[in-house]
Amino acid sequence: MIKVGINGYGTIGKRVADAVSKQDDMKVIGVTKTRPSWEAKMAIDKGFDLYAAIPENAEKFGEAGIKISGTIDDLIKEVDVIVDCTPSKFGAGNKEKYYLPNTVKATFQGGEKPEVADVSFNALANYEKAVGKNYVRVVSCNTTGLSRALYAVSSNLKIGKVRVVLIRRAADPGDSKKGPINAIVPSVKVPSHHGPDVQTVLPDIDIVTSAVKVPTTIMHLHSIMAELKENTTAEDVIKIFENTPRIKLIDSTDGFPSTAEIIEYARDFGRPRYDLYENMIWRDSISVKDNELYFFQAIHQEADVVPENVDAIRAMFNLASKEESIKKTNKSLRI
Amino acid sequence: MIKVGINGYGTIGKRVADAVSKQDDMKVIGVTKTRPSWEAKMAIDKGFDLYAAIPENAEKFGEAGIKISGTIDDLIKEVDVIVDCTPSKFGAGNKEKYYLPNTVKATFQGGEKPEVADVSFNALANYEKAVGKNYVRVVSCNTTGLSRALYAVSSNLKIGKVRVVLIRRAADPGDSKKGPINAIVPSVKVPSHHGPDVQTVLPDIDIVTSAVKVPTTIMHLHSIMAELKENTTAEDVIKIFENTPRIKLIDSTDGFPSTAEIIEYARDFGRPRYDLYENMIWRDSISVKDNELYFFQAIHQEADVVPENVDAIRAMFNLASKEESIKKTNKSLRI
Amino acid sequence: MIKVGINGYGTIGKRVADAVSKQDDMKVIGVTKTRPSWEAKMAIDKGFDLYAAIPENAEKFGEAGIKISGTIDDLIKEVDVIVDCTPSKFGAGNKEKYYLPNTVKATFQGGEKPEVADVSFNALANYEKAVGKNYVRVVSCNTTGLSRALYAVSSNLKIGKVRVVLIRRAADPGDSKKGPINAIVPSVKVPSHHGPDVQTVLPDIDIVTSAVKVPTTIMHLHSIMAELKENTTAEDVIKIFENTPRIKLIDSTDGFPSTAEIIEYARDFGRPRYDLYENMIWRDSISVKDNELYFFQAIHQEADVVPENVDAIRAMFNLASKEESIKKTNKSLRI
Amino acid sequence: MIKVGINGYGTIGKRVADAVSKQDDMKVIGVTKTRPSWEAKMAIDKGFDLYAAIPENAEKFGEAGIKISGTIDDLIKEVDVIVDCTPSKFGAGNKEKYYLPNTVKATFQGGEKPEVADVSFNALANYEKAVGKNYVRVVSCNTTGLSRALYAVSSNLKIGKVRVVLIRRAADPGDSKKGPINAIVPSVKVPSHHGPDVQTVLPDIDIVTSAVKVPTTIMHLHSIMAELKENTTAEDVIKIFENTPRIKLIDSTDGFPSTAEIIEYARDFGRPRYDLYENMIWRDSISVKDNELYFFQAIHQEADVVPENVDAIRAMFNLASKEESIKKTNKSLRI
Repeated sequence: MIKVGINGYGTIGKRVADAVSKQDDMKVIGVTKTRPSWEAKMAIDKGFDLYAAIPENAEKFGEAGIKISGTIDDLIKEVDVIVDCTPSKFGAGNKEKYYLPNTVKATFQGGEKPEVADVSFNALANYEKAVGKNYVRVVSCNTTGLSRALYAVSSNLKIGKVRVVLIRRAADPGDSKKGPINAIVPSVKVPSHHGPDVQTVLPDIDIVTSAVKVPTTIMHLHSIMAELKENTTAEDVIKIFENTPRIKLIDSTDGFPSTAEIIEYARDFGRPRYDLYENMIWRDSISVKDNELYFFQAIHQEADVVPENVDAIRAMFNLASKEESIKKTNKSLRI
Repeated sequence: MIKVGINGYGTIGKRVADAVSKQDDMKVIGVTKTRPSWEAKMAIDKGFDLYAAIPENAEKFGEAGIKISGTIDDLIKEVDVIVDCTPSKFGAGNKEKYYLPNTVKATFQGGEKPEVADVSFNALANYEKAVGKNYVRVVSCNTTGLSRALYAVSSNLKIGKVRVVLIRRAADPGDSKKGPINAIVPSVKVPSHHGPDVQTVLPDIDIVTSAVKVPTTIMHLHSIMAELKENTTAEDVIKIFENTPRIKLIDSTDGFPSTAEIIEYARDFGRPRYDLYENMIWRDSISVKDNELYFFQAIHQEADVVPENVDAIRAMFNLASKEESIKKTNKSLRI
Repeated sequence: MIKVGINGYGTIGKRVADAVSKQDDMKVIGVTKTRPSWEAKMAIDKGFDLYAAIPENAEKFGEAGIKISGTIDDLIKEVDVIVDCTPSKFGAGNKEKYYLPNTVKATFQGGEKPEVADVSFNALANYEKAVGKNYVRVVSCNTTGLSRALYAVSSNLKIGKVRVVLIRRAADPGDSKKGPINAIVPSVKVPSHHGPDVQTVLPDIDIVTSAVKVPTTIMHLHSIMAELKENTTAEDVIKIFENTPRIKLIDSTDGFPSTAEIIEYARDFGRPRYDLYENMIWRDSISVKDNELYFFQAIHQEADVVPENVDAIRAMFNLASKEESIKKTNKSLRI
Repeated sequence: MIKVGINGYGTIGKRVADAVSKQDDMKVIGVTKTRPSWEAKMAIDKGFDLYAAIPENAEKFGEAGIKISGTIDDLIKEVDVIVDCTPSKFGAGNKEKYYLPNTVKATFQGGEKPEVADVSFNALANYEKAVGKNYVRVVSCNTTGLSRALYAVSSNLKIGKVRVVLIRRAADPGDSKKGPINAIVPSVKVPSHHGPDVQTVLPDIDIVTSAVKVPTTIMHLHSIMAELKENTTAEDVIKIFENTPRIKLIDSTDGFPSTAEIIEYARDFGRPRYDLYENMIWRDSISVKDNELYFFQAIHQEADVVPENVDAIRAMFNLASKEESIKKTNKSLRI
């Protein structure tokens, strides 16, 4: 049983903690939180040992009536691997301060620069590259979604240049501070960073991206255009996606006109926190015209990297092959 | 085992179906849907027998590859009680057409006029009035939330006039059609219908309400002002609410500045569909000044009437006392 | 002086009425409205003669205390040209019923099918084609914005395939009914109709488009990707746009991170109704990479077709050359 | 001619600058800005002399190609009065640093504490109190709206306790950073600060308020409940409001179901920046029941304090009586 610590029990951390708990070859030793709050209490209520992420804040937990098991300094000594889910750009510092000195492996999230890790990771696209590695960066929600779809397409079809426009949710559902309320905010620098980030996982894909933020909280949406170097049909592409793990096809005519109904589906399906680990691709958006493939996919920003973190740990400790790990993770999460 | 049919497997119907399934003294015989969709498929995937709500539409289900067990005409013959969750104002017609001729009992939802039923119902406030009745109307989400809070207060304190302003969510989360996107829409007629509706449950309360709709999907919020005819303190009122079922106190300083974090809490807590059956009252908003009580509560419009429907059925068949039923329902739903 | 009637004094109609009033070679004879409202009163307050768009509704205006000058049947006899600003798909019927029988010319808006008119029109792109014509369709706000930008680029550079993703406002600012409140709604059919619509104006452009709706009211945003068949630089493209009428360049670093600040600029600039008749292109989004041009533009959906309707009238009556008309219209509207 | 300086050319400052420019007894000497931006350029384009609000930033304007006429230290020497429109809580420091040492009078905005000034001001409610004063605080947009309506009512009717729930816009239209996107945010401390703030202007009113923020940018909305100590009717109250300056009555049935259509009206009416200086009260919301008056009003947060600043200057220099000043200001602003 691999002993896992979660550094940063927030949007991603709390989901990875739950996901790791459902595996039979790894277990959660503890999770960290910077300060007391209902989320810290919830971690304990769920049975996780809680540690102070910032040692100096340790006393504040006691004052708030929350029992901690120590600080990150203590947790780090108990684990084989840390899943670093601290805010963007904090992971690199944590590596220097905690993970390297204690020779503890770590996965990082997509907010870190690629250089923090030995490899940027997506289970489907490059699981093997992470085998035995000490530091693995699970790419961001958007990059994960793109890597899956483009790996599937490019493994089955000769493709050329890929263009993607990302229409991003501006804040997560639990965030009441960030806007905009009534505006579209472009990432003015075109191409956006998402294209190069996909290439950290799929270096052979010729991809260029642009991105905008819009006033919604629930999902990202990608408009994908991929040039084709061989003849194919929409039906062929549908078959490819049907055979790809962590991709789910939906039809607008079946009651899915927008991201709202997709989330409603996830709520009804009974996923914890309505988490959609899969790329949700509109089957009826898939079209091929003049040697170019077009489709829309929706990405649940809070969830799609969760199974990837589990697989990354398996790869790092060489616990299973790519296919075995994906299958195992998927089964445990009802994907 | 009381045999229950759900007429209208939508926002409320699907939740009541799940809730009834968790009881040991009643079971779901079948649910109806007007036309095929992913929600209809989901009902079957969850193990519910599906019936066509509109007999003429029966064939459409087969064409869409969805197996139905008959129509509402068939379902009505199999059940002891129907939970009518059809859209507002359809219940009265259904009663004439289906429930009365088949001498089947029914609960209706708050969108119906009070006259459709023998009693307007809230478990805490007037369970006894529904005992043995054939037609019971479970009041709307807002009225349910107000009835609970005001019953609790008025049972413990002498109160005078109550004023409430309801800030309502404009559309449910799964609805991508309704707006407004960027406006506040008052219910121009003041007082609004909510006050008289509370009085169908609590006739002795002197209450006047006004209401506005705002561009949010997740929860309603009530600003409540109750005149007091005896001396009390905020602490006393907190104790009253702490001892009231289906009321939960939260603190803004504990990480709950808005309705967004409340829903995040429900997601983490693991409720199905993140359903909050309880009134969520901000403890630090409760204040008493110049013989008047003030507080804010948030109401999850999709969920708070769900346990009330279960209790209503128990009352109609005299299966349990008020306290027993509330306790039983709460336990089954992890309230 | 060309005598102009405005059929449909709504979002576009009221703006065209004001714009025509500012010209010295045409004047507004009257405007129509289907029923009484504050907008009907406002038309009269602004000095426009009001006519009932639906003759049977004529009496309702009197009952509401609004003096009308007759019905559409009367107006049609007084004018040389009608600007048809009735809701989408109504124009074709109006043509049969009113314009053809009275041999009155008409401009239609982009909601009509191209077949309603002799030519689909954009002043910059194909003014000459409308000269002397009886029926001219001014293309939609999005198509107008794309036609301007792509005409400018393709007149100066050899371009190949153009790809555009349109991120559309879901409702106009004065609309409190339409949503979504919290979702992204793709036009699932890819390519969208916008590409073919651009080709009604610019038949030689190889363009493919996809579109999504988002919860904002103020502007559309276009992410444009144009393949280049000759070498060029961002600076060259900037010069092209600087020399193109009805295109305005802005910099994100100058205080324009989103569409919100663009509208704030228009309010401060003092345009009536904050109307932005121009394509607003982010200068710092313009980039050229691997023989492809990228940029973002924001389009004020309520306003950009207004000068085009004025120019269309001039073309139809051969009152001025393309350059003269654009210059004249621009000057009158402070563009 | 009173020489006016505007310290802080932002949301309020730019409007007051335009309003002062339209008066015949005062003129704008200059406006300040903390750093270069399109708004700074716009000030110059409109003919205002620009000064650096932060002397150390003076060079940055030149570097950005914007010609300034000096710094706040220079401006202060040229003026009789400063309208301080700097961000909340900055005014007090400015008073100490600039206004007092130079014996320059100043108006402050509602974000400052009352103690910064000799009097908290609303033209209708207490113009006379500001006559001859050196430091006057124009109360906030919400307090201004409440002071007008409650002064009008309480001057004509004996009223008792007043309760108000304020449903506030969460960000201004030109702000693309602030949220929430999908939540209701209560001001958990009840009563809110708005009640005591109204009492700085109308000390005899017994008022208690609570407030929530909602995801809209365009207007605030107030739900007002006022106990009556004498008999009256809705018609009587309508007459009172009809005879009160800076109050405008609208009817929901006339096309005003929400704040969206109100702003649309202001755009059509041709106000600069669509500014609504008036309280917009729904006539059909005004009702009297059981000796209590109820109504809804919408407040344009960017605009309603603008005429008040003009009147405040007149009072401070004793240029006109209350009635004369209000009339003069209203006429100049087309109120």
